Amino acid sequence: MEIYLDNSATTPVCNEAIRAVNDALQINYGNPGAVHSKGNAAKMIIAQAKKDIASVLGALPEEIYFSHSGTLANNTAVFGAAMAKRKTGNRIITTSLEHPSVQRCTEALEEQGFEVIRLSPGKDGSFLPEELISVINSKTVLISAMLVNNETGAINPVQYIKSAVKRVGAPALIHIDAIQGFGKLPIKCSSLGADMITLSSHKLHGPKGVGALYLRKGVNIKNHIYGGNQEGGLFSGTENVPGIAGFGAAVRALPDIRNELNVMQGKKDYLLRLLQANPRIKINSPENGLPYIVNLSVLGIPSQVLINYLSENKIYVSAGSACKKGHRSEVLTRLGFPNERIDSAIRVSMSRFTTEEDLKIFSEALNAACGRIRVKI
Amino acid sequence: MEIYLDNSATTPVCNEAIRAVNDALQINYGNPGAVHSKGNAAKMIIAQAKKDIASVLGALPEEIYFSHSGTLANNTAVFGAAMAKRKTGNRIITTSLEHPSVQRCTEALEEQGFEVIRLSPGKDGSFLPEELISVINSKTVLISAMLVNNETGAINPVQYIKSAVKRVGAPALIHIDAIQGFGKLPIKCSSLGADMITLSSHKLHGPKGVGALYLRKGVNIKNHIYGGNQEGGLFSGTENVPGIAGFGAAVRALPDIRNELNVMQGKKDYLLRLLQANPRIKINSPENGLPYIVNLSVLGIPSQVLINYLSENKIYVSAGSACKKGHRSEVLTRLGFPNERIDSAIRVSMSRFTTEEDLKIFSEALNAACGRIRVKI
Repeated sequence: MEIYLDNSATTPVCNEAIRAVNDALQINYGNPGAVHSKGNAAKMIIAQAKKDIASVLGALPEEIYFSHSGTLANNTAVFGAAMAKRKTGNRIITTSLEHPSVQRCTEALEEQGFEVIRLSPGKDGSFLPEELISVINSKTVLISAMLVNNETGAINPVQYIKSAVKRVGAPALIHIDAIQGFGKLPIKCSSLGADMITLSSHKLHGPKGVGALYLRKGVNIKNHIYGGNQEGGLFSGTENVPGIAGFGAAVRALPDIRNELNVMQGKKDYLLRLLQANPRIKINSPENGLPYIVNLSVLGIPSQVLINYLSENKIYVSAGSACKKGHRSEVLTRLGFPNERIDSAIRVSMSRFTTEEDLKIFSEALNAACGRIRVKI
Repeated sequence: MEIYLDNSATTPVCNEAIRAVNDALQINYGNPGAVHSKGNAAKMIIAQAKKDIASVLGALPEEIYFSHSGTLANNTAVFGAAMAKRKTGNRIITTSLEHPSVQRCTEALEEQGFEVIRLSPGKDGSFLPEELISVINSKTVLISAMLVNNETGAINPVQYIKSAVKRVGAPALIHIDAIQGFGKLPIKCSSLGADMITLSSHKLHGPKGVGALYLRKGVNIKNHIYGGNQEGGLFSGTENVPGIAGFGAAVRALPDIRNELNVMQGKKDYLLRLLQANPRIKINSPENGLPYIVNLSVLGIPSQVLINYLSENKIYVSAGSACKKGHRSEVLTRLGFPNERIDSAIRVSMSRFTTEEDLKIFSEALNAACGRIRVKI
């Protein structure tokens, strides 16, 4: 029996998505750019998936553009907005805790002469609206913030961005990387106030190799990659039709999001109750964070040692994010945790398939690890 | 019964690839960046696929980098080489018949100040080595040419590029877009003399959503997208593990390439014999082109009318490439064909699964179309 608690890195693919991928592989294998009926069948798969995603997001289907990864969608949003708006200003505002696929793009733009301001996290790990208001000006061209932090689950107050932009009359486009929040928080594009929202299939039980960008109707950004102009010219390259079919099916298979959020809060509370008996376990995630993610430290056991021990017991968790392996977590460092806490941190990330039994076995394994692994505190 | 003759747009996925995709979806769904055994299993799938592809190409596994599309690999090769070498020169040489995923990148570099020289096609559609020799200089930083033209099957004499580079002592990197040739021509990275070679899975019976770049060991190029530094930092973004597994399986399932080339030449010859009885059919592909692709015109019947007629009969061909739908073919225009020939051109692209029976039914359908569709010549 395997206990998979690394769902923020990637999720097991749900049966609905597997079936959809297979139909596209076996029957609807045409190129959506082809003008014969085999091509049209592939085009219709894409159109259906756009409807499914748009419906959850409260968007129009034509506002959804499929990319080949969440990273590519983030790159296109950040570079594309900065390039489209650079005649109107030079300031970019982001946070200091973004995923590398946003963070490294803003660093590259900084090298090109943009002024990049990074909001610091408050003690719960989310940015402070008052700091945003103090740094935004009428030359701000882009604000990019993640909805949910991938390492801690902290939720940013992104709903304040739009009014801040209006207040100063900035030409800024608003980009929300919602990869960890979509399908988990009851968000709508209107309530986020966003011009661009990044999504990814494989974080919600769809296949890898497909992401999406919501781009508000009427907003133009520059493409970052060049080619056959697929997906409105934003994401050239033959569309990953099986992946898109699977993404759509995974979104259709989502349970009621508000209800599931309560269920997940129950699972998080249950886990925290199990863990509180062990004094060496410290919780790094904020209380008000997304309940799917619980970052914790087992003092005295280095992250990798604990991950290996758990992995030998077929329990899978990660240290920080899969995208930052081998490095001390920048996120926890910026949050001001002491080194002993950072170096012993693991991220437990649950899904709707996680059971209380899984969490019980996991917490018992942590207790066993504390007894068996030689530690230095 | 369907007759699929649009294999240069995309191919039906072979059973071996479908099985490999499913194993990755159902069992090995871990994130290859994760450091537990579920992550390691995904990493091993990637490693195996690299071995399979490297073996066909005569490369080292570590010279193969998976991208999320052939387009992204082409963008990275062209921009990445130009950016890495721009201190050493300003000239880029390419051909006037490249795929948009190369052509639009060199246009963007031209806007940034690079001098781009485009070799003209000779009458068989391939570039002339003597023209290359006349324009290459010691400030040339990149030469990018496709191996096989996607619309006509013309094969470029790319093997002459390396000696031309050496002759003038240029710092140029050599990039070959081999998307239409890999798995069909018996190429090795050494015989191509290339620093970079672009490949795509879905052109050889693998799934969509995965490409690869061969990057010769020791050669450094700049990344075009930014993020978690997957694939040596060249292609950030969670790897499309199911797609990569399918790509590897499709490559393992390739028949002997030299032998298959002879078989395909036999199929092309058979098709041409069937078609020669109809005086309104003109062949646009060169005699010495890749036999998988036969571009032809049925004088008097506009491409789209013929494609629709065939599609209604469950025969699928395209007009030019799927990436250029709705536009008059730039490739045939540059090759100097008269408009009536360009506007009635269709591309028949075969695969190893194409049978003589398919070709017979197709040629009979063409003859029937000539009788039934009202034409203007």
